[in-house]
Amino acid sequence: VDTNRLEAFSDGVFAIAITLLVLNLSVSDPTKITHGGLAADLQHKWPSYAAYFVSFLVIGIIWVNHHFVFKLIARVDRPLLFINLMLLMVVSVLPFPTALLASYIRHGPADSHLAAVIYSVTMLGMGLGFAAIWLWVTRTKSGLLHERLNEVAARGAIVRFALGNLVYVATIGLSFVNAVLTLALHFVVAIYYVFDQLPVDRGANTNGEP
Amino acid sequence: VDTNRLEAFSDGVFAIAITLLVLNLSVSDPTKITHGGLAADLQHKWPSYAAYFVSFLVIGIIWVNHHFVFKLIARVDRPLLFINLMLLMVVSVLPFPTALLASYIRHGPADSHLAAVIYSVTMLGMGLGFAAIWLWVTRTKSGLLHERLNEVAARGAIVRFALGNLVYVATIGLSFVNAVLTLALHFVVAIYYVFDQLPVDRGANTNGEP
Amino acid sequence: VDTNRLEAFSDGVFAIAITLLVLNLSVSDPTKITHGGLAADLQHKWPSYAAYFVSFLVIGIIWVNHHFVFKLIARVDRPLLFINLMLLMVVSVLPFPTALLASYIRHGPADSHLAAVIYSVTMLGMGLGFAAIWLWVTRTKSGLLHERLNEVAARGAIVRFALGNLVYVATIGLSFVNAVLTLALHFVVAIYYVFDQLPVDRGANTNGEP
Amino acid sequence: VDTNRLEAFSDGVFAIAITLLVLNLSVSDPTKITHGGLAADLQHKWPSYAAYFVSFLVIGIIWVNHHFVFKLIARVDRPLLFINLMLLMVVSVLPFPTALLASYIRHGPADSHLAAVIYSVTMLGMGLGFAAIWLWVTRTKSGLLHERLNEVAARGAIVRFALGNLVYVATIGLSFVNAVLTLALHFVVAIYYVFDQLPVDRGANTNGEP
Repeated sequence: VDTNRLEAFSDGVFAIAITLLVLNLSVSDPTKITHGGLAADLQHKWPSYAAYFVSFLVIGIIWVNHHFVFKLIARVDRPLLFINLMLLMVVSVLPFPTALLASYIRHGPADSHLAAVIYSVTMLGMGLGFAAIWLWVTRTKSGLLHERLNEVAARGAIVRFALGNLVYVATIGLSFVNAVLTLALHFVVAIYYVFDQLPVDRGANTNGEP
Repeated sequence: VDTNRLEAFSDGVFAIAITLLVLNLSVSDPTKITHGGLAADLQHKWPSYAAYFVSFLVIGIIWVNHHFVFKLIARVDRPLLFINLMLLMVVSVLPFPTALLASYIRHGPADSHLAAVIYSVTMLGMGLGFAAIWLWVTRTKSGLLHERLNEVAARGAIVRFALGNLVYVATIGLSFVNAVLTLALHFVVAIYYVFDQLPVDRGANTNGEP
Repeated sequence: VDTNRLEAFSDGVFAIAITLLVLNLSVSDPTKITHGGLAADLQHKWPSYAAYFVSFLVIGIIWVNHHFVFKLIARVDRPLLFINLMLLMVVSVLPFPTALLASYIRHGPADSHLAAVIYSVTMLGMGLGFAAIWLWVTRTKSGLLHERLNEVAARGAIVRFALGNLVYVATIGLSFVNAVLTLALHFVVAIYYVFDQLPVDRGANTNGEP
Repeated sequence: VDTNRLEAFSDGVFAIAITLLVLNLSVSDPTKITHGGLAADLQHKWPSYAAYFVSFLVIGIIWVNHHFVFKLIARVDRPLLFINLMLLMVVSVLPFPTALLASYIRHGPADSHLAAVIYSVTMLGMGLGFAAIWLWVTRTKSGLLHERLNEVAARGAIVRFALGNLVYVATIGLSFVNAVLTLALHFVVAIYYVFDQLPVDRGANTNGEP
C-alpha cells in the first residue's frame, strides 16, 4: 500500500467521523416541548454543543497532523498499516465517548467522572496511536522515512509526542475530580494544538517538497 | 498541506453532510398510522422536505464555490487550514439546524422564530467562513494566490461576499417575524446563487487553467 | 470544475448513500422479542431486505453508468454542475423512499400504493436526471464532449435513455395496482441494467481511452 | 472503469461502513440510569464493544487485502465491476449483523445461535466475494491481470482463499453451538489475517511496482 491510498482512506474515515458527530445533536420532539420552551430546551443541552465542538476540533487537528506525519513517510509496511488502522479505530469511535460525556456530564459524580475518564482515555489512545506511528517509522533503519528527514528534528518530535500524551494522562486524573473542567481542559489542549506547529514541519518545508 | 488534499478532505465532508441530511426525513411507524393515513402523514411533514431541499442546495452551492475559490489558491498555510476547518464545522453541523427548523417551524411563534434564527445564523456562519478565507488569501503579500490572479477582480469578489452576508443578516431579521418566509427567502437566495457566477471565475477561466 | 473533481464528489455521494441504506435494517429491541422469536421477527422484516437489495443495486448501477457517461464528457459547465447536483439529490434521498416502501408495503392498499408510487417516482427522477445530463452535453455545439465521440452512437443512447424512463413510468402505473409487484419489477429492471451495456461505451472503448 | 476509480469508490464504501459501526454503540438515556449506575450499564453492553472491535478489524483487513488484490489487476471489465459491487454490498451490510449479534448474543440459545449464524454467513459472503474476484481475474486469458504476475503464486493464493472460506464455514457450524465462542473465533481469525501476508504480495513487490 502506498502512502497515497493510506492517506486517502484515513482522510475518508476522518471526514466521516467528524461529520457523524452531528448525529449527537438531537432535536427534541416538538410535541413534548411546551410553546415557548425551545430556548430552555436548547440551553439545557449545552454539553452536547461543547462536546461536539471539542471533538470536532480534535479530529480536525488529528487530520492536519496525520498529513504532516505522512508527508515525512515514504513507504508503508504492513505493521504501519495496522498501527494506522488502530489510530483510525480510536478516531472513528470518538462519537461514542463524545455522546457519553455530553449525556452524563451533569449526572451524579461517579457517572460524570466515569464518562470523562472514558473520553480522556480515548484522547490518550489517539496520542498513543500517533506516538506508535512515529516510533515505528523513526526506529533505526526502518527505511520508511524520506531520506532527507533530519534525525535531530525527528527525535525532537518524539519528545513532543511524549509531552502531549502526558497532558492526556493529566486529563484522566482530572476526570476523577470534575467532568466539566476535564472537557474544558481538552478544549484548551485542542486550541493549543491549533496554534502549535511541529518543528519537523519546518524542516520538511525547506525541502521544497510537493 | 497542499490544496489537493485540503480540497479532497473538504469534498468528503461536503459529500457526507449533504447525504446525512436524508436522515432528517423520518418514516412514521406504520403501526401508528391508520390505513389510508399515509398521504396525510407525509403531507404533514412538508417542512422536512422543504428544509431538506434548501439545505441540500446550499451545501451543493458551497461545494461549487469552495472549488472555484480554491482553484485560485496556490498554497495553504496553517491559518488557512483552520479557517477552512471552521467553515467545514458550519457545513457539517447544518443537518442539526435543518432538523430544528423543520421540527419547530409550525410550533408557537417564539420557538419557530428561534429555530429560524439558528438556521439563518448557520448560513451567515458559512458566508463569514467564506469571507474569512477570501480575506486571508487576498491580503497583501499572502503569497497564497496564483500570481496570475487579477487584483481588481479579487476586490470585486470581496464586495460580493460582503453583500451575500448582508442578505444572511436580513434573513436573521426576518426570522423574528416569520419562520416559513425565512425558509422561503433562503430558498430564493440559494436559487440566486445557482445562477450567479463570480466575476473572478471568468478571469481565472481565461488562463486556460486545468 | 473539471470532470475529475465532479466525479470524485459524485462518487462520494454515491458511496455514502449506498452505505447509509443499511441504517434501514433495524434490529428489534431484544427485550421485546420472546426467546426463540428472533427468526420470526427477521422473517417478518423481509421487505426491508428486499428494498435494501434493490436500492443498493440501483445506486451501484447508477455509479457505473455515471462513470461511463462522464468518461465521454471533456468539460463541465455551470448548468451541467447543477443538473448533476439534482441527480445527486435524487440518489441521496433514495434511503427515504426505500424505508417508506419497506415500511408500508404490507399496509392497506392506499398506503402501500402511495409508497410504491413515491419509490417509482424517485427512480424516474434518476432516469430523468441522467437524460437531462445527456441532452445537455449532446446538444449541438455544447463543446462538452470529447471530440472523438460518434454522433450516431450518442443519438442511439438518447433513445435508450428514453426507453429506460418509459419503464420507470410503467412502474409508477403498476404502483397503483400492487406494491410488491412494483418492487419486483424494479428488481428485474436493475438486473437488466447489470447485464446491459450502453452502445456508446464500445465506441468509446475503441479509442483506447484511459 | 479503470481500477483507480473502482478502488476509490470501494475505499469510500469501506471507510463509511467502518465508521458507521460506531452507531451501534448506543448511550443509555441518562434519565433511565440511577446515579452511579453508568459503570454497570456500560459493562452490561460488552457484546457491543466486542462485536464493534471484531467487525472494525474485519473491514480494515478487507480494505488492506482489497488493495493488494487490485494492485495485481490491470483492467476492469463489467462482470468484475458487479462482482466487486456484490462484495461491497456484503461489507456495507456488516453493521446490521454486527448489531444483531451484539443484541442477541445473550438471548435464548435459538436466537443467539441464529444471530451468530447470520454474522458468520456474512463473513463467508466476504470470503466468497474475494474468491469470486480472484477466480474471475485469474481464469485463463482473462487479460485483466498485470502480465508480470507469477501464475504459480496466483494459484497458491486460490488455495489460501479456499482455506479462508473453510474457516468461515467452520464458524457457521460453531454458531449452532455457542454465539460467544463464535465471536471469539472471528476475532482470532481476524488477528491471524492481520499477521498473515499473501504470498502473491511478495511476488508483486519484487516488481518494484508503484
